[in-house]
Amino acid sequence: MVSVEEAERIIQRRTRDYGTESLPTEQALGRFLAAPVVADRDMPPFDRVTLDGIALRFQSVTDGIREFHVARSQAAGEDPGKITRPDECVEIMTGAALPSATDTIIPFEDIEKVNGQGIYLLREGSYQFGQNIHVRGRDRKAGEILVNTNQWIGPPVIAAALSAGRTELEVRKFPKTMVISTGDELLGQHKPLSAFQIRRSNDYMLASDLQLHGLRANTNHLPDDPVIISAEIGHCLREYDVIILCGGVSMGKHDYVPGALEQNGVKPLFYKVAQRPGKPFWFGEHASGVLVFAFPGNPVSCFLCLHRYFLPWLYASAGQPIRPVYAQLGYDFEFKPDLQYFLQVRLEVNEKGMLIGTPAEGNGSGDFANLLASDAFLELPLGREKFSRSESFRVWPFKNWT
Amino acid sequence: MVSVEEAERIIQRRTRDYGTESLPTEQALGRFLAAPVVADRDMPPFDRVTLDGIALRFQSVTDGIREFHVARSQAAGEDPGKITRPDECVEIMTGAALPSATDTIIPFEDIEKVNGQGIYLLREGSYQFGQNIHVRGRDRKAGEILVNTNQWIGPPVIAAALSAGRTELEVRKFPKTMVISTGDELLGQHKPLSAFQIRRSNDYMLASDLQLHGLRANTNHLPDDPVIISAEIGHCLREYDVIILCGGVSMGKHDYVPGALEQNGVKPLFYKVAQRPGKPFWFGEHASGVLVFAFPGNPVSCFLCLHRYFLPWLYASAGQPIRPVYAQLGYDFEFKPDLQYFLQVRLEVNEKGMLIGTPAEGNGSGDFANLLASDAFLELPLGREKFSRSESFRVWPFKNWT
Repeated sequence: MVSVEEAERIIQRRTRDYGTESLPTEQALGRFLAAPVVADRDMPPFDRVTLDGIALRFQSVTDGIREFHVARSQAAGEDPGKITRPDECVEIMTGAALPSATDTIIPFEDIEKVNGQGIYLLREGSYQFGQNIHVRGRDRKAGEILVNTNQWIGPPVIAAALSAGRTELEVRKFPKTMVISTGDELLGQHKPLSAFQIRRSNDYMLASDLQLHGLRANTNHLPDDPVIISAEIGHCLREYDVIILCGGVSMGKHDYVPGALEQNGVKPLFYKVAQRPGKPFWFGEHASGVLVFAFPGNPVSCFLCLHRYFLPWLYASAGQPIRPVYAQLGYDFEFKPDLQYFLQVRLEVNEKGMLIGTPAEGNGSGDFANLLASDAFLELPLGREKFSRSESFRVWPFKNWT
Repeated sequence: MVSVEEAERIIQRRTRDYGTESLPTEQALGRFLAAPVVADRDMPPFDRVTLDGIALRFQSVTDGIREFHVARSQAAGEDPGKITRPDECVEIMTGAALPSATDTIIPFEDIEKVNGQGIYLLREGSYQFGQNIHVRGRDRKAGEILVNTNQWIGPPVIAAALSAGRTELEVRKFPKTMVISTGDELLGQHKPLSAFQIRRSNDYMLASDLQLHGLRANTNHLPDDPVIISAEIGHCLREYDVIILCGGVSMGKHDYVPGALEQNGVKPLFYKVAQRPGKPFWFGEHASGVLVFAFPGNPVSCFLCLHRYFLPWLYASAGQPIRPVYAQLGYDFEFKPDLQYFLQVRLEVNEKGMLIGTPAEGNGSGDFANLLASDAFLELPLGREKFSRSESFRVWPFKNWT
């Protein structure tokens, strides 16, 4: 049996680079960049007008000129015009390029049009040289990095890449992953159920969680049959980068998973973690590099193991380790066994900005029903029995803010 | 011009119910339940053994019996056996149903097998009546609600629904949504660009953000042509529930959007919000009920408006209002204009559980490049110029924890 910390260390020492692939930019949403996005030209590419008004020379305002003659009108996207006299201006729209010899934009709110004469009168006010211009190259110079490698590709990254002319993005490949649940007591949908059987759901739960993180895994279910389990593991070792198993890893007579794994040459790196839930977690590696996460079959256990071990490994493998999150315990809690306890909590942020994790039903029961009302696991350290309200601990969120 | 608060109130008064649809359970991930999921039988459906060991009668232990004869061995999924004598036990596996006349499970760690005799010896220790049994109906009784209506369908909800035999789920429909950007200066990919034009990206940014929230929107781009804009708006008013526009709403000569909307019978509910960025935000409603969110064309402005106004409206319409998040300001900040300022911040949780929002580049610049390094908008209230480090304010996160 290893500690949570040791288990984490052993797993994190085995982060892997699964290579890269090229995707159309819009389809790269939710993935990780495998190469930086570079500005193809200055950003903005010209001195960009940031609101509608007139472009003029600031010196004219300083010199006391208040009447400006419209030399031309210029929309966004048009080649910039110019002015030739100090009392001229260009009527100009948001997004347009600054005309030659002008350096300042006065918004329409601060001027008044003299009807039919093509003249604007400047109101009294305080104007600043260069106001309302987004200067060329201020955000980035051509050739500079716009988005760093390994960044998560959210909507702003999609927009930045498209505006830099990138129709494709190089993204990190995720490992080819198979999720397998085992157990004779678990039946698929549409099959008649005896009073002592239950519906198969763990593999779908884990696979849908992976899907939320951008990884499309395959799923399968196997009976408690050592021959079938061994054959399927052999097959998956050839076809996949990662195998996630649920169930069949305890000490029972029908727990064939560890045996079948070792028979197929998967070397155990640890078996059992000093934690609750999720104690009989088996982790191993094949000589080919394939990693096997064999989680216990209890739904809360395998869900915890996915969030506490697999996802941090996945994100670290993608070059973007998970940022730690901490929360204060909502009220006093006691846990006696010498195991690291993962408490299911509901997360809330109070008006001071403090994250509070409150046990979902108060009794700290790790039942599956509680999971439905929870947002995160709160990790209580080993070697203590009492945990006080307002102490802060690391949490592993599994629901988003919105 | 309205305040942020008024704009929010006007929009939130127009939440809509777009009806429901039925989806295969696995495909309902990320949606909202339109009807509760009810337990089809007790949960668990039988007294469920929670670890591998032997099932026996607790009174026998109290009576001092230490040798137990194996009456049978029982796997998960099998019909439960029984014992007939006080010194009998059933060898039993995790997930199995409790045999008749037994009431307590002793794990294999606490017993020793007498070789070849079918007898287990109980080690000295403290045992409790009923230990290691998940009692029938403890989580839910048949007919009780397992998952409430309006809940977000995450992986645990998928698992709960499947284990209750639900192959389909009734979910809330999202509004049929069209995202349109406008502007002659914006060109699609693969088109040659003049020095004063830029690449179209706003509509993809907004649509990919909606996709992260489960809503698949259509996108389109229109030139600054009042006839084309008006015709397309007319078309979308017939085909969609919601129209999101970006650009063409300022005071410039080529800002045809508000005119085209009113011409098509969309009644303006407000125009301009006392905020930065995003001031020229136009919001209206057609007699048919179609809502039009016409955002400014600046990328940061339209991204803010989507997160501050549209998504809260969408979630409220789905019956699950967004939970407020607050963060402490990472350091002193000053903002003078009499506008509500949305500061781009990077969010971090310190070890005390405090959310800290630190301006992405320190200068509070609202440029698009900053958005790439930010996680949220921090909403600074009106009527003040100075905001101090450690004061807390509401934030609008646009990146997840992981």
